[in-house]
Amino acid sequence: MINGSIFVGGQEHGGGAIFQAVDPATGAQIEPGFASASPADVESACALAEAAFESFSATTLEERAAFLEAVADRILAAKDAIVPRAVTETGLPKPRLEGEVGRTVGQLRLFASVVRQGDWLDATIDPALPDRQPLPRVDLRRANVAVGPVAVFGASNFPLAFSVAGGDTASAFAAGCPVVVKGHPAHPGTGELVARAVREAVAACGLHEGVFSYLPGPSIELGGALVADPRIKAVGFTGSRGGGLALMKIASERAEPIPVYAEMSSINPVILFPAALEARGQAIAEGFVQSLTMGAGQFCTNPGLLIGIAGEALDRFAEVAGKALESSQPVTMLTPGIHSSFEKGVAALESHEAVTVVARGCVGEGVNQARGALFTTDAASFLADPVLGHEVFGSSSVLIRCKDVAEVKQVIAGLEGQLTATLMMDEADHGLAAELVQPLARKAGRVLANGWPTGVEVSHAMVHGGPYPATSDGRTTSVGSLAIARFLRPVCFQNLPDALLPAALRSDNPWQIARRVDGTVVKA
Amino acid sequence: MINGSIFVGGQEHGGGAIFQAVDPATGAQIEPGFASASPADVESACALAEAAFESFSATTLEERAAFLEAVADRILAAKDAIVPRAVTETGLPKPRLEGEVGRTVGQLRLFASVVRQGDWLDATIDPALPDRQPLPRVDLRRANVAVGPVAVFGASNFPLAFSVAGGDTASAFAAGCPVVVKGHPAHPGTGELVARAVREAVAACGLHEGVFSYLPGPSIELGGALVADPRIKAVGFTGSRGGGLALMKIASERAEPIPVYAEMSSINPVILFPAALEARGQAIAEGFVQSLTMGAGQFCTNPGLLIGIAGEALDRFAEVAGKALESSQPVTMLTPGIHSSFEKGVAALESHEAVTVVARGCVGEGVNQARGALFTTDAASFLADPVLGHEVFGSSSVLIRCKDVAEVKQVIAGLEGQLTATLMMDEADHGLAAELVQPLARKAGRVLANGWPTGVEVSHAMVHGGPYPATSDGRTTSVGSLAIARFLRPVCFQNLPDALLPAALRSDNPWQIARRVDGTVVKA
Repeated sequence: MINGSIFVGGQEHGGGAIFQAVDPATGAQIEPGFASASPADVESACALAEAAFESFSATTLEERAAFLEAVADRILAAKDAIVPRAVTETGLPKPRLEGEVGRTVGQLRLFASVVRQGDWLDATIDPALPDRQPLPRVDLRRANVAVGPVAVFGASNFPLAFSVAGGDTASAFAAGCPVVVKGHPAHPGTGELVARAVREAVAACGLHEGVFSYLPGPSIELGGALVADPRIKAVGFTGSRGGGLALMKIASERAEPIPVYAEMSSINPVILFPAALEARGQAIAEGFVQSLTMGAGQFCTNPGLLIGIAGEALDRFAEVAGKALESSQPVTMLTPGIHSSFEKGVAALESHEAVTVVARGCVGEGVNQARGALFTTDAASFLADPVLGHEVFGSSSVLIRCKDVAEVKQVIAGLEGQLTATLMMDEADHGLAAELVQPLARKAGRVLANGWPTGVEVSHAMVHGGPYPATSDGRTTSVGSLAIARFLRPVCFQNLPDALLPAALRSDNPWQIARRVDGTVVKA
Repeated sequence: MINGSIFVGGQEHGGGAIFQAVDPATGAQIEPGFASASPADVESACALAEAAFESFSATTLEERAAFLEAVADRILAAKDAIVPRAVTETGLPKPRLEGEVGRTVGQLRLFASVVRQGDWLDATIDPALPDRQPLPRVDLRRANVAVGPVAVFGASNFPLAFSVAGGDTASAFAAGCPVVVKGHPAHPGTGELVARAVREAVAACGLHEGVFSYLPGPSIELGGALVADPRIKAVGFTGSRGGGLALMKIASERAEPIPVYAEMSSINPVILFPAALEARGQAIAEGFVQSLTMGAGQFCTNPGLLIGIAGEALDRFAEVAGKALESSQPVTMLTPGIHSSFEKGVAALESHEAVTVVARGCVGEGVNQARGALFTTDAASFLADPVLGHEVFGSSSVLIRCKDVAEVKQVIAGLEGQLTATLMMDEADHGLAAELVQPLARKAGRVLANGWPTGVEVSHAMVHGGPYPATSDGRTTSVGSLAIARFLRPVCFQNLPDALLPAALRSDNPWQIARRVDGTVVKA
């Protein structure tokens, strides 16, 4: 059931058919029309979120985990409605979206297990030392607490895993923060179905209705008003650099500036090492084209930059990659707007005097289809023009030909912050790679070897983040269990009687969590 | 030996006697004259810091800890030169400065122990699962790495513990970050002596000279240029709200915005609960005046706001506090500028129509002396004028008389972010206190009971931080072992051969640190 509604806490209301989703595969509008949240909705949702904060942030680990699982269960139960609607709204294939439901559910369950374990509280106790000289030490106890209500902006390219109940929402809930979601206008039906699942979970778990609100709408002002609301204490965003920068500006100009966790743009350099290229250049080239064109290249971790040392092996690589790309089929992009940006970005590279087209993918017959594009240029040209280092969202990549290792290092040093950096190497390359791992780790949140960056595991060790402008805050991740840290702050409680302490810090350790006592972690 | 020098890495150079320190107790200038660092010095210091980064951030835990201890040892060795100079430059008494040397040395040694233990690396391993269905999992390993060169701005009120080798510098070194210190012009001689100790430790430990530079100077532009330098990746600052906001603005407008950890202003509310006030109002009043006037009230955690319910007990409290304050001796403030700001702040409260003077301290005969000041107003007036909630740096405090508990809650809800919030309570107050702990924890980094906030322990559980504007970033602390987290970022290494991994993540665990494997911490 898709009503085109806004969910402000437990209230569902319409507001006229202000906008409709578009099927990118046909360009046709899809029924029904959707309401667009108003400033009054932002006000009500934020007031409810604030009202919900005290009780929600004080839920037990078990209550919070059970809520996350209830959200997961309801999304899974609605899968048969969600997937076909998401296919129509995004042009993404059904198996991909089925997988994304699984990933979304898996994320929620991972955070449930993280919440139950309690390590994220970082509970720390420095017991009183009444006899210490020259001064006694008082009892000091520290734990992380939720920052407050969080605004979440869904991404167009993951209508489930990075949207209404995606990683940002799951990690904010896990931290104990009520969430107000700004729904993405490209998949409003999918958004509403997921929002309804979350809302039902809130009610079923007996939580305050303000724990979750869903504000769909196409306007930029709506998102700006949400970030400007004084009750919002942090923002999660996945989208364009322009969008992320605009939210960062609003957040920094508030009377109380707040953190914005914006995942924005990345071209994900891949270093092609000589021995690997020599030994298995063909396989690497084929794998590259697969990663480049998968999902029309609409991944934040798409390999948009290849860096190699000019020579026969690199020429052969380009030739094989070009041939594979030429036979690649065009793929429908997420929205007409994304397609048009892709076309502009590719056209700019095609007409750039220092850039040569290696190959383009097949021409399609449908609308909004991406033809893959591989370009090449030399290192000097790349270093001379920062535009060549900007992301073209979609299956476009530039191969940089360097004269020697020194130039490879120069290119790396000149890169902006990235989500990922990839080493394609064989054992004979390890000596050279050893010199590049640290420089690449300074530029990226994830350094990987002999794989493609487009696979992002949801786990404890994952970092889906990186220095600016890959994200607004390179100290964090938006995927994996560490994402919970974005919505926490430490508070020290000094000399408080047990009854007034948060449960995590009480002397009887009621949650049976691991705690750091006098500097050493002690298991329960 | 104080030469009035600038230390750019291993180079010491003068540059003319541009400014001198002032003895605040006499107003007289102190020899020698000091050079002021130039834009060229900023450039050189940042270039050296960048050059030092790769090797310094790759030092072993033992090497890094030994360096921190070497700094501590050299400061201790120079104590007999440092303390008298600091007394003359700050007007602070000798025992206080001797204690501050101890604290500074203790901080460095605490971070050495933290570094050796290795928990700060948050080493996390998700082993490969080659047989997982539907897709295998690759080997993923995450650890924290240093963010890059750090700029540190010393505070005037702690010429050692929050200055050249204070908590910001110690925690940045511990994280593996080279440090460029902007020396505070109020204690340049003390600064130079400490800087020389650090520089000697860098050399003695065989580290790259760029690990530390010291740029003294009175100009605001100098600090701005340092924060704007693209090689600087984070900033530590303790000082005024105006100063902190200016640095935040520069940092956010860089091509690559960077985090500023500014500890700025706080009035540290103290809630006087009814039963405690009834039972021991006199003792609380006397303790309050001691905390208020200690060190001329020049602590970030000075109790600048008292909140109580109007009535006889509160009247008696005010009377006793007033009497104690009236007999308190005036104390020399740190600088003529701080004294003049204090006078202005006190005069503004004195002339405020809604504010009554409870008492002032004794009039002094010397220059730059603070006379303590206690004011009172009612809750409605306090809520109506935000100026009454602004910090007056020094021994000035305002007692808010509330009609009832509801008004106490309103006052708390209206507060800006704070470093601390204090509960003065007896057992009979616990019921009421239970309702206020969470609201206070939302406003402050530390909530304490039955003590005064001016004591700040350097330990694992301490949080010396708090929501804006107490600090620029309420997710962190500038005191205690958690301060290291400010200068770290996580990096994930995927499928890297052991030889290319950071030591913290190698399969043989060469540093024998605790690591999280598949979500559970495993001791070495």
